[in-house]
Amino acid sequence: MNVVAERVAIVGGGLIGGSLALACRAAGVPEVVVTDRDPAARQVARERGLAEVAEDLPTAVRDADVVVLAVPAAVVPDVAADVVAAAPSTAILTDVASLKSDLTVDVESRLRVLGVDPGRFVGGHPMAGSERAGPEAADGALFQGATWILTPTPDTHPHTVQVVSGLLRRIGARVLALTPRRHDELVALVSHLPQVAASALADVAGEASAEAGEVVLAIAGGGFRDTTRIAASDATLWRGILTGNRPAVLAALDAYRGRLADLADALARGDDERLEVLLTRASEARRRLVPKAGDGPVVDVVVALDDRPGTLAVATTALGEAGINVEDLAMRHAVDGGRGALLVRVSADVRDRALSVLEAQGLAVHVDVEEAP
Amino acid sequence: MNVVAERVAIVGGGLIGGSLALACRAAGVPEVVVTDRDPAARQVARERGLAEVAEDLPTAVRDADVVVLAVPAAVVPDVAADVVAAAPSTAILTDVASLKSDLTVDVESRLRVLGVDPGRFVGGHPMAGSERAGPEAADGALFQGATWILTPTPDTHPHTVQVVSGLLRRIGARVLALTPRRHDELVALVSHLPQVAASALADVAGEASAEAGEVVLAIAGGGFRDTTRIAASDATLWRGILTGNRPAVLAALDAYRGRLADLADALARGDDERLEVLLTRASEARRRLVPKAGDGPVVDVVVALDDRPGTLAVATTALGEAGINVEDLAMRHAVDGGRGALLVRVSADVRDRALSVLEAQGLAVHVDVEEAP
Repeated sequence: MNVVAERVAIVGGGLIGGSLALACRAAGVPEVVVTDRDPAARQVARERGLAEVAEDLPTAVRDADVVVLAVPAAVVPDVAADVVAAAPSTAILTDVASLKSDLTVDVESRLRVLGVDPGRFVGGHPMAGSERAGPEAADGALFQGATWILTPTPDTHPHTVQVVSGLLRRIGARVLALTPRRHDELVALVSHLPQVAASALADVAGEASAEAGEVVLAIAGGGFRDTTRIAASDATLWRGILTGNRPAVLAALDAYRGRLADLADALARGDDERLEVLLTRASEARRRLVPKAGDGPVVDVVVALDDRPGTLAVATTALGEAGINVEDLAMRHAVDGGRGALLVRVSADVRDRALSVLEAQGLAVHVDVEEAP
Repeated sequence: MNVVAERVAIVGGGLIGGSLALACRAAGVPEVVVTDRDPAARQVARERGLAEVAEDLPTAVRDADVVVLAVPAAVVPDVAADVVAAAPSTAILTDVASLKSDLTVDVESRLRVLGVDPGRFVGGHPMAGSERAGPEAADGALFQGATWILTPTPDTHPHTVQVVSGLLRRIGARVLALTPRRHDELVALVSHLPQVAASALADVAGEASAEAGEVVLAIAGGGFRDTTRIAASDATLWRGILTGNRPAVLAALDAYRGRLADLADALARGDDERLEVLLTRASEARRRLVPKAGDGPVVDVVVALDDRPGTLAVATTALGEAGINVEDLAMRHAVDGGRGALLVRVSADVRDRALSVLEAQGLAVHVDVEEAP
């Protein structure tokens, strides 16, 4: 078999499977077959022309070089067993589930029990999604520029990783390899821990606001809004995510609570030098982890807005026509639901020009600070 | 004296003092005098026509009904002493410093030592600012719709609060009264604690990224970006803010660490019901504290953008022309600095229409989720 996959079978024609089918076809993969156990999903896949649609799994995987298991995590081991029973003995398997440690162990064990080489499987996790589900939502550009993590184990054949990576790069994804455990740890740190941190913040502020009426709401600034935004997410969904990654989330929480203890300790002891060292290290980490679009200093220009369609367009059009690049954008709503403001981040070099351009449109503008002097 | 201030003296002609002078004049206050110990600041105030400019403090406050101490916190007690020596014995004093507990005690003690009734003073904190300083940046609309907190003590005369509130409402501010201590506690909770929480998050992720290369950066999603955004703030500035409000920040940190301990405990014990109860309470608190502009459900439409001026305007103009209200806006930059995306939050009712309008402009769009399925 060539290291370039020529025949790709996708089991599960939902958002991820359907989008992958479209992306593979757009990338010129010669044979793309999709199947789904749900006849309605197969029907939509056929109507949308996502790919060749097979009526059942054995037919779909019969000639495959690579089989993508785009099915829910809970059924991946069973579906993997069905696939190896019907696919060529050289076929490579990968999945798209969002947690990897336990699942990879389960799939490899299942293959071993069946006398199948577990080195033919590599776990995967595309860092892309949409709130819409099903083949109706399939989007061939979903993975363009997205990161797709692969999680090889010591049993995984290098050839397996090479073939799957090649396919993913071909559809425009950025491939990163991590061990399954490291994947779950990092997702815990950058996705699951922030959720818990934001929830705890919103909860303590909520308790205070129960006593202080609407005062908290009136004084909560942009910093509070940003740090707690994801706390408003669906609690049942997050219960599932956090408990699914329990050990890694607990480890991340431990590290986080340790860091908060360091900060509290420095503050309590009056060790203000140490406090500044910790804040500086954090500030440098944030700047390194989430680089700004531009490299130089930026300012947020605040444009007073009516909460009506149209005003926003006046501001952005005026900047666009003046050739001023908007590096970031946010809206700030008035506490009482009245007038809001648009925050437009521009390079500090063009600050004065941005202000003039906006003022020329009759807009009230000023440059923002996070903390009032 | 009437409860409506007719003669307002402002000591300190910087951003806050100068903006207040402009706002008072615009609101029709008959006499507004501003002074500043810096001759250059007085000169700018005069040139900009902020108000009548007095050469020295005694001249400025000579006939005042209300004197606003728009000077740095460290000199407020001294300036208050200078003011009571020169102002009418009925004049009311207020300040604009961002922390109130210690300062209010200091000012009241100083007045008492001078044999002056401390009931004539009430502390204040306007929740508004700009990164520009000095009278050059003065903006008569700075306090329009902003919250201005007053912090009376048991010694403060009701008349004092009544007069200052009346003046502030006249310039369009929203006045809230809190005890000095409660003010500092709430600011600790909604501004200072989020800073520490974000810094600790960025720091633990930064440590992981030191081991994991640029992987953390590649997998950090919108939740991580939002929760850690303010961690990039200036560490020296924040050292000053946190140490200035030490007891309240420590109390807020205690409450926060307690909440994190509850969440970690539920997760560690496998008490998933309890975990969901805590997450639900947090989600409800966030929704209550930061209500969305619209009341109903919303969706974030993701528009693929080139990082060029103009494309942004095409999207917002098309929505404006279609009468679709943009409830929130954010930009998402590609990890590698290439193509980015615009997140446009619209009411869920108009989702399909928003998608069509944007697609008609040749833009690639989809609806976002926080967590990939």
